[in-house]
Formats: sequence, structure tokens, C-alpha cells
Amino acid sequence: MPDHVYKVIELVGSSTTSSDDAIRNAIERASKTLKHINWFQVVETRGHIQDGKVAHFQVVLKVGFRLED
Amino acid sequence: MPDHVYKVIELVGSSTTSSDDAIRNAIERASKTLKHINWFQVVETRGHIQDGKVAHFQVVLKVGFRLED
Amino acid sequence: MPDHVYKVIELVGSSTTSSDDAIRNAIERASKTLKHINWFQVVETRGHIQDGKVAHFQVVLKVGFRLED
Amino acid sequence: MPDHVYKVIELVGSSTTSSDDAIRNAIERASKTLKHINWFQVVETRGHIQDGKVAHFQVVLKVGFRLED
Amino acid sequence: MPDHVYKVIELVGSSTTSSDDAIRNAIERASKTLKHINWFQVVETRGHIQDGKVAHFQVVLKVGFRLED
Amino acid sequence: MPDHVYKVIELVGSSTTSSDDAIRNAIERASKTLKHINWFQVVETRGHIQDGKVAHFQVVLKVGFRLED
Amino acid sequence: MPDHVYKVIELVGSSTTSSDDAIRNAIERASKTLKHINWFQVVETRGHIQDGKVAHFQVVLKVGFRLED
Amino acid sequence: MPDHVYKVIELVGSSTTSSDDAIRNAIERASKTLKHINWFQVVETRGHIQDGKVAHFQVVLKVGFRLED
Amino acid sequence: MPDHVYKVIELVGSSTTSSDDAIRNAIERASKTLKHINWFQVVETRGHIQDGKVAHFQVVLKVGFRLED
Amino acid sequence: MPDHVYKVIELVGSSTTSSDDAIRNAIERASKTLKHINWFQVVETRGHIQDGKVAHFQVVLKVGFRLED
Amino acid sequence: MPDHVYKVIELVGSSTTSSDDAIRNAIERASKTLKHINWFQVVETRGHIQDGKVAHFQVVLKVGFRLED
Amino acid sequence: MPDHVYKVIELVGSSTTSSDDAIRNAIERASKTLKHINWFQVVETRGHIQDGKVAHFQVVLKVGFRLED
Repeated sequence: MPDHVYKVIELVGSSTTSSDDAIRNAIERASKTLKHINWFQVVETRGHIQDGKVAHFQVVLKVGFRLED
Repeated sequence: MPDHVYKVIELVGSSTTSSDDAIRNAIERASKTLKHINWFQVVETRGHIQDGKVAHFQVVLKVGFRLED
Repeated sequence: MPDHVYKVIELVGSSTTSSDDAIRNAIERASKTLKHINWFQVVETRGHIQDGKVAHFQVVLKVGFRLED
Repeated sequence: MPDHVYKVIELVGSSTTSSDDAIRNAIERASKTLKHINWFQVVETRGHIQDGKVAHFQVVLKVGFRLED
Repeated sequence: MPDHVYKVIELVGSSTTSSDDAIRNAIERASKTLKHINWFQVVETRGHIQDGKVAHFQVVLKVGFRLED
Repeated sequence: MPDHVYKVIELVGSSTTSSDDAIRNAIERASKTLKHINWFQVVETRGHIQDGKVAHFQVVLKVGFRLED
Repeated sequence: MPDHVYKVIELVGSSTTSSDDAIRNAIERASKTLKHINWFQVVETRGHIQDGKVAHFQVVLKVGFRLED
Repeated sequence: MPDHVYKVIELVGSSTTSSDDAIRNAIERASKTLKHINWFQVVETRGHIQDGKVAHFQVVLKVGFRLED
Repeated sequence: MPDHVYKVIELVGSSTTSSDDAIRNAIERASKTLKHINWFQVVETRGHIQDGKVAHFQVVLKVGFRLED
Repeated sequence: MPDHVYKVIELVGSSTTSSDDAIRNAIERASKTLKHINWFQVVETRGHIQDGKVAHFQVVLKVGFRLED
Repeated sequence: MPDHVYKVIELVGSSTTSSDDAIRNAIERASKTLKHINWFQVVETRGHIQDGKVAHFQVVLKVGFRLED
Repeated sequence: MPDHVYKVIELVGSSTTSSDDAIRNAIERASKTLKHINWFQVVETRGHIQDGKVAHFQVVLKVGFRLED
């Protein structure tokens, strides 16, 4: 295995359903334009509240992908 | 939009079901006595264990609401 | 109540289903060999991505248990 | 000097003008309802952007005040 | 045990005697106006110095209490 | 409101005048090439010193913008 | 002196008396089963409150000991 | 360019006017006794409040200067 | 010197040889597609282990480069 | 009150007796050579262990003192 | 691939030669008694100084290994 | 062993060769003017890049030395 280099970007996914879905939404959006996505890491979980209820979960995450040589 | 001021309080919600529900429980309890609740931010996720299983998820969160002028 | 001493260990649970399940998997594995497990605390949530989707949620957690005297 | 006890609350001030003004706005709003406000400490500086320009500076700050005995 | 919600406030206790006493002073002052106080957590230990000696220990702490339903 | 995804990038703005201007310079430069810029968050404030005076304020900031679907 | 390797474990000591005693209790319990204990490092100080008073100081600490070759 | 060594000291500047001025005041005081001052880095922004207004901005900063060989 | 704006990206370099080489590999890969690369900052050092030996050093680093006006 | 500038230094005090005494020892040593010492702030509490007991408490602390104009 | 559980332990390796060697020494010592060691992560790099020279590099690291089911 | 007091200073060493050499350079420079230097601790590793290559490793480190009584 050669000495790969990876890039890490920061995304915020949102979901009205769950914090896990906010992660999945961000990953699926990223995979439309990036190849070789490899791992993610949650940086922060937050959300908006409307009428006394959670309206959106928002998850800030780092996403790592391998750069082609 | 005028120069609003917000207050941020720290709550701990708990749930036997899921960490997302622990968040929702804290928000709904807070909305009984506070108006203009606007956002939340997870500070820590922890829980109690009984008989080798997760008995409660406990989520520490900050909750922000607008102060009336 | 006497002056108990607790030990805290660090585990990583994984799950293809949800981040809460990754926590539960780590706790249940730990309870096979440890008695008096008492609380957990999430250190980090991360995961692997395959084919543009979350393949595994991985949750790093601290788990505390009481030492026998 | 007796052994005073202080309370610390978290506020977010906003200003269209400057980050220092966001601090001043939060302090002045707090002083409407609290006596003996003594110090502040900046937790985070953030802001909203509209049309490619800073629309609001938002400063999260802790504010400490002495509790009456 | 139902799904309780707790509130966490930040206090600063001071003492001319010891850092543990600064904690005790803050807790005892808080218990005058709050019920169901449950735990504390030290955020920071600091103090004032006069004539080359520690004049006050000051301990910043978080104090958690259960909200009534 | 659909489940938006945002990207967060890190910039360093500099200014000979003030730390707020260093923020504004970074935002205005970013808005030349990015649409839907929404918020910023200060990561660090630093600067260069020449002849015993502040020559440049340098502000490291995160800037978030919505990705188009 | 050869190139030693040390292991670091995390313990929580508790004491009804003082935070220093909570440290001592954890160390003494650890020394029943471990040899070559060398240093400790406080990670967090917390405690339980009963009837408006500190019932237990709890100190989370890391304890380092040399592994035999 | 040879392998320089720098020293970093921590200062607190204060100003009744602005947080940027608190930085400038600390730098100018330091430059009275130190040569080769090169950069600063803000550690914390805080301040005193009197009569419900910001009386002083206080900025804790690290200041780096090159040591002569 | 005008008020430059810099962008900071996060990379992970890997090397079978040393942690410094992991840094160099990431920088050299980045310089294939970016101009004006100026500084780096190590965020984390980690690695993979195979057969009880370090197989790869992996260094997460931030890399800053000047944006053209 | 003019715009004072303070310097902050880092010390480690040790004591065979208690962590508070380790703080006092550091302050008293510092006051032999420094005037206008004003405050301290605990950075870390650690210690050495001998024969299964705490041999020394070691407290790392920052000490602030006003610079003369 | 099933839902594995990993354990993470903290070690300190030392070396008179280099910080990378301190890592390697800790890993090789750990592999004497543990199977399935998988990754490491540097927590802190420190060292002892004798006669004005680095006598030992000491690297605190976390080491992760898979638990057997 | 009496209750020693130590001072901790922050230095930045640089080296064109390696990050370990940047540490050694800082220690050796410090030992020209300080006695009883005892330990160091790495705060941050960074560097300058020229022509797409690492030009200097720069290591920020804390250095502790015993104060004479």
C-alpha cells in the first residue's frame, strides 16, 4: 500500500428526523461530487427549535477522502 | 432586524429510548416555561447502565432563547 | 455509602444501524467480562463510508465500573 | 471581605456594527434585570452573512454577578 | 424512574480557607433557593493574591438540579 | 424547508486596521467565488508586530455556505 | 536507564472528606493490585450533593505505572 | 535563514475603549523592554463591568519574540 | 503589503518511515495543485499497526495558502 | 484607573501535604522576586506516588502580576 | 463484517533517540501481551532534559485493539 | 526532598531537518541561560513551506526548570 494522502472537508447535514439521518444526508450529498469518501467524524450536534419542538437536527462533521495520486 | 440578545441555558435530558429522545425531552420541558426558544447544541452524551444494558441516555445540551427587549 | 473507587475504560462500539446501537453493542460486550458497570460517556462519534453511504457508525466511549473493595 | 458567591450566565449579544458592540449590547440588556454585574468573558465570536457582507456580529459571552447573601 | 430533566447553572464560590470550602460555600448558597440539587463539577480553580499570599480561593463550578415535572 | 447540506471552509483574513476588518476582508474575498454564504465563526485572532506595534490583525475563521442540491 | 514503557489507567476516587482524600483513596486502592505506580494527574473534580451539602467529592484521575519488561 | 529560537510570553492588556486597543496597549508596553517582537495570539477576551456598562476590555495574549543567538 | 486572504485546508499524509515524512508527503501532494502554500500545522498524529509494529504514521495537518486577489 | 498591562507566568508548586499547599508554596516563592502579584489560576493538578501513596501534590498554575508603567 | 468492539488503552513510550522511536517502543511492548492491535493516536509528546540536552522523548499514546467476540 | 517550585516557559524551536531537531534546538538555546532545566512538553508542531516543500519545522514547547530556593 503506497503512502496515500487524504483530504478532510467539513460539512453540516440537517434532518427533521434524527441526528443519524443528518449525518447520512451530508454523506450522500458529498458522494455526488467526491470519489473515495472513506470516513466521517462528528464535530458538533446542534439544531433549530420551532414551537417548542426540535425542527431540525444539524450535525457538523468532517469527511475524509483519498486524493488520487 | 434589531440587535437581539439571547440567553443560553444548560439542560440535561434523559430517555430510556434514544439519545435523540433525550434531546427532545429536554426541549419540550424547557418550552413549558420559556418563550422564543431558538436553537440547541449538544455538550455531552452520557448514560446510566443497569444489568449490562443502557438504562438511560442522558444528553447535556445548551438551549438558546431570545430575550424580550 | 463507603468511599468507592471506580475504573474507567475506553471502548469503541460499531454498528451498521445507528450510533445509539454502537453504544449498546460496546456496553453489552463489556458486560460479558465486567461487573458493576455503571455509566458511559461518549468521547467521539465517527464512522466508515462505503459506496457513498454510512457503512458503520463507530462510537468511542468511556465506561465506568465500581472496583470491588 | 466575606466569602461571596457569584452566578455566571451565558448570553449572546448581536450588533450590525462591531464585535465590541455586540458585547456592550448583551451587557446593557443584562443590566436591566440583574444587579452587581461584575465581569464578562467571551466564549465565541460568530456572525451572519448576507449578500456577501457581515450582517451581524454575534458574541457569546459569560457574564458574572454577585449573589446577595 | 421517569425521564427527568435537569438544569445546570454555573456558580463561583470563594473562601479564604481552602478550595474545597469555596465549593461548599457555593453549594450552600445555591441550596437556599434551589431544591433537588444533585451534583457539581469543577470548571476552574483560581484565586486572588494579596501581600504575596493566597487571599481567596475561587472555584467556578457547575451545579445540576432536577426540574420538577 | 428541505434538508439542506452546508460546507464549512477555513479562511484567514488580515487587516492593518482592526480585527473586525480582518473578518470582513475574508468574507468579502470568499463571496467573490461562493454563493449562499451564511455564517462565520472566529477560530483564532492573531497578528504580526513590526517596530513594537500591531502591523496586521489576522483572524482565522470558519465560513459556512449552503450547497446547491 | 532503559527505554521504559508505562501504562496509564483512569480511576475515580471518592471521599466524604476532601478532594485530596478522594485522590488518595483511588491511589491506595490501585496500589493493592498494581506495582510501580508512579504518578497521577487530575482529569476532573466533581461530586454529589445531598440535603444542600457536598456528600462526596469525586475525582477522576489518570494513574501511570511502569510495565515490567 | 538559521534555526531561530523564539520565546513566547503571556500578557494581559486592558483598555476602556476597545478590545483591539487592549491588544495594542499590551504590545506597546512589551516593546519597551523586548526586542524582536514578532507576533501575538489572543488567548481570551474578558472585561470588567461597572454600572451596567463595559468598564474595561481585557485581552489575554501570547506574544512571541526571537531570542538572540 | 496589502490585506491578504488565506485559505486553510485539512490533509492527512501517511508514511511507512516517519511522522515527519507523513507531513512532507502531504505537503508535496498539495503543492501539485495549489500555489502559494505557506505554512502547516499538525492537528493529530496517529497510525496503523500490523503484526505488532507501526505500519503507517498518519499525520492530520492544516495547510494554509494565499488566495490570489 | 489607567490601562494597566499584566504579565502571566506559569509555575509548578509542590507539597507533601495538600494540593492547596502546593498552590501556596508556588505563590510564596514567586512573591520573593515579583511585586504586584494579583491572581492565580490552576492549569493542572498532578503528583508523584511512592510506595502506593501520594508523595507530592504538584499544581501547575498561572500567576498574574501588574507591570509597572 | 460484524459489529466489532475495540478497547483503547493509554501507554507512554520513551526513547533516547527520537519521538517516533518512543511510539514504536510502546507499540512493540504492547504487542507482547495483546492481540489484534490496530491503531494508535498520539496524546502528548514530552521528555526529560539532562545537562541541557533531551535525555528521553516520552510519547503518550492511545492504542486500540479489537476484542474477541 | 523539599517542596520545590518550578517555572515553565514557552519556546519555539525551528529546524530545517526534523521536528525532533526543532525541539533539541530550543532546549539547547534555553540551557545557555537557565540552570536546572528538567522537562519539556510539546504544545504545537507547525512549519513554513517554500517551493512546495517543508522549509522549517517549528515546534512550540513548554520547558520546566527548578527555581533555586
